[in-house]
Amino acid sequence: MSEQLNLLVAHSPKRQAVFRITPDEVDAAIGRSKIPLPKLQIDFCAMNDPAFGGLMDRAYGMIGWQFPRDLVTATEGPLRLIQLTGAGVEHLLPLEWLPRQVALATASGIHAAKIEEWAQMALLMLHTHIPHFATAQRHHQWSKILTPGIAGKRVLIFGTGGIGAAVAKAAKRLGLATAGVRRNPAPVRGFDRVLGLDGIGETVAEADFVVLAMPLTPATKGIMSAEMFARMRKGAGFANVGRGGLVDQDALIAALRSGHLGNAVIDVTTPEPPPADSPLWDTPRLLITPHVSCDDPETYVPSALDIFLDNIGRRLKGQKIRNRVNPRHAY
Amino acid sequence: MSEQLNLLVAHSPKRQAVFRITPDEVDAAIGRSKIPLPKLQIDFCAMNDPAFGGLMDRAYGMIGWQFPRDLVTATEGPLRLIQLTGAGVEHLLPLEWLPRQVALATASGIHAAKIEEWAQMALLMLHTHIPHFATAQRHHQWSKILTPGIAGKRVLIFGTGGIGAAVAKAAKRLGLATAGVRRNPAPVRGFDRVLGLDGIGETVAEADFVVLAMPLTPATKGIMSAEMFARMRKGAGFANVGRGGLVDQDALIAALRSGHLGNAVIDVTTPEPPPADSPLWDTPRLLITPHVSCDDPETYVPSALDIFLDNIGRRLKGQKIRNRVNPRHAY
Repeated sequence: MSEQLNLLVAHSPKRQAVFRITPDEVDAAIGRSKIPLPKLQIDFCAMNDPAFGGLMDRAYGMIGWQFPRDLVTATEGPLRLIQLTGAGVEHLLPLEWLPRQVALATASGIHAAKIEEWAQMALLMLHTHIPHFATAQRHHQWSKILTPGIAGKRVLIFGTGGIGAAVAKAAKRLGLATAGVRRNPAPVRGFDRVLGLDGIGETVAEADFVVLAMPLTPATKGIMSAEMFARMRKGAGFANVGRGGLVDQDALIAALRSGHLGNAVIDVTTPEPPPADSPLWDTPRLLITPHVSCDDPETYVPSALDIFLDNIGRRLKGQKIRNRVNPRHAY
Repeated sequence: MSEQLNLLVAHSPKRQAVFRITPDEVDAAIGRSKIPLPKLQIDFCAMNDPAFGGLMDRAYGMIGWQFPRDLVTATEGPLRLIQLTGAGVEHLLPLEWLPRQVALATASGIHAAKIEEWAQMALLMLHTHIPHFATAQRHHQWSKILTPGIAGKRVLIFGTGGIGAAVAKAAKRLGLATAGVRRNPAPVRGFDRVLGLDGIGETVAEADFVVLAMPLTPATKGIMSAEMFARMRKGAGFANVGRGGLVDQDALIAALRSGHLGNAVIDVTTPEPPPADSPLWDTPRLLITPHVSCDDPETYVPSALDIFLDNIGRRLKGQKIRNRVNPRHAY
C-alpha cells in the first residue's frame, strides 16, 4: 500500500453538468474517507479523448457512467474496479465486454433519500388524482374527485433493492400496506409481503397502486404488459421510477385512454425524452416528469465518490465489493 | 333535560351529495356521543322547502351550510345554535343577520388530517417543480430540473388555525422551517415563528414557499396582492388552500407569466369554478385542483355531526361553544 495508485474519472461529454465529477469533489471525498489508502494520482478524462486509453491502462480504479468498453476489454493494465455513478447498468448490457479481473459496481443506494421523498409525493398524487386534475385543466374543466386519507391503501412495488425499499419506506410512512416483487422471493425490510415474478397476478389485482422500481434486464423488459395492466383493478394508480423499458408504453397509453387505469406518474420513458410527436405527451391522466425522481444534485457526486473510495479500499484488501454487479443477473 | 329537543338538518340542494347528512349518519353520531342529551327529534329539510321555517321555529339547534338567513333573524323560537358543516363563514358575511341569542359555530378542525396529507403533497410538488413539468408536458417538452431534498426549506403559512396548523405539521414532518401569520401574533404549536399581518415583508422575501390557509374576511381579501408576490423570492412556490378571494388572481397570473413566481398549486379560485375562458387554466406553472384539499368524504359528515352534538350539550349546560364564530372577526 506504499506505492502510488492511479484512479481515473471518466467524463461522459453528453451527461448533465450536475453529474460531472470535479477535482474539488474528489479531494473532499478523500478527506471524508476513513479507509487507509495509498498515495493517489487522480486523472480526469473525457471518454472520447484520445488520451483516455493511456490513462485507463495505468488506472487501478475508474469511476464514471460511460466509457469505451472495447478499451476495457483489451486492457492489460492493473484495472480491477469500475465504479458506476448511477444505479442502473442497462446501458452497458450485455456485460460480455467486462474482463473477469475487473469488478463492476453500481452506486445503488445513493438515491434512497431523494426517491423516498419523491415516492411519498407520487403516491399522494396518484391517490388524490393529480394527473386527472392536470388533464382536466388542459381542457379548462373543473372535475372534482374527493378522496379520503391514503392510509390503509395497498401498493405493489416491483423491485426490492435500494430504490424499491425507499418506495416501501415512503409507503409505510403514509400507512400503506406494501407488497414487493423480486427474483428470489424472501423477506425484505419495509415490505409486508415479497413475491416472485410468477404468482403476482392476484396481488396486482388487489393493489391500489403499482410502482416500478426494478432494474431493466432481459428478464424485466416490458414486464408491465397489456395483460398486466388489464389485471390491475379499475381506477388504480401506476408509477414508474425504474426504467421506461419496463413498460409496454402502448399498453400504458391504452389502459389510460380506456379509463381502466386511473392515474399514472412516470419519471422514465423509452426513448428518453419521448419524441415531440409521441402520444405519451397527450395521454389523459398521465403525468410525465423528466427523470428527476432519484437524483439529488447536492449529494449525487459526493455519495458516488464515497462508494468508489470505499470499494477501492475493499478491492485492495480483497474484501467484498459494495453493489457489485453479477454479470449473470445484470444488476 | 327531560323534555324533547328538536334539531334541524338543513340541506342545501346545490351542494354535493357527499356533504348531505343522512338519518343513518345522525343515528350513528348519537350512538358515538358520550354527552348526556335529552330525547332528540331530528328533522331534515331542504333550505328552499316551504316547511323550513316551521321546522326551524321549533329547533334548538340547526346544522348545515346554507339556510334562509332572514328566517333565522326573524325567529322567535328556541334556536340557540347554528352548526356549520364547513370551516369558513365567508358565504354568510356580514353576520348582521345573526340574532344575539344564537351561537354560530364552524366545523373547523375536521379537515386537519386530510389537509395535512394534501399539504405534504403540495409542498413536495412545489419543491420538485411538478406544475412546471405539467406545463412542459402540454408543450411536449422534457424540461429537466433536479432538486435536492426539501428539508431545511422555509415555508410561510398565512393562517394558524386548524388548517394552517395542519399545513405546519406537514411542513415540520418534511423538515421545513415554519413561520405563521395571524391577526394577533402569539406562539402557536408547530410554527417556529408567528408574525402579525404587518411586518411580514422580510419573512415573505425569505420564504421558499408561501401557503394561504386563512379565512376570507374583509381584512384578508386580496392579501396576496401584486406587491406581495413581488416581495416573494424569485422562483419561490405558492399554494392556496384557503379561499380564492385571498388572492389577486391577475397578480398571480402575472407573477407566473413573468417567471418571478416559480410554481403554484391552487385548490381554490374566484369564482369557483373559473369560467371556461379564464386565463387561469393556461397559466404556466400553475396547477389547479378543484377544491379537494380539505374534505375527506369518509369523515366529513360524521366529524361535523360530532361537533354539533358536542356543542348542543355545551349550549344546554351553558358551557363554551367549540369553534364559535366571533361576529366581529368573522371567523
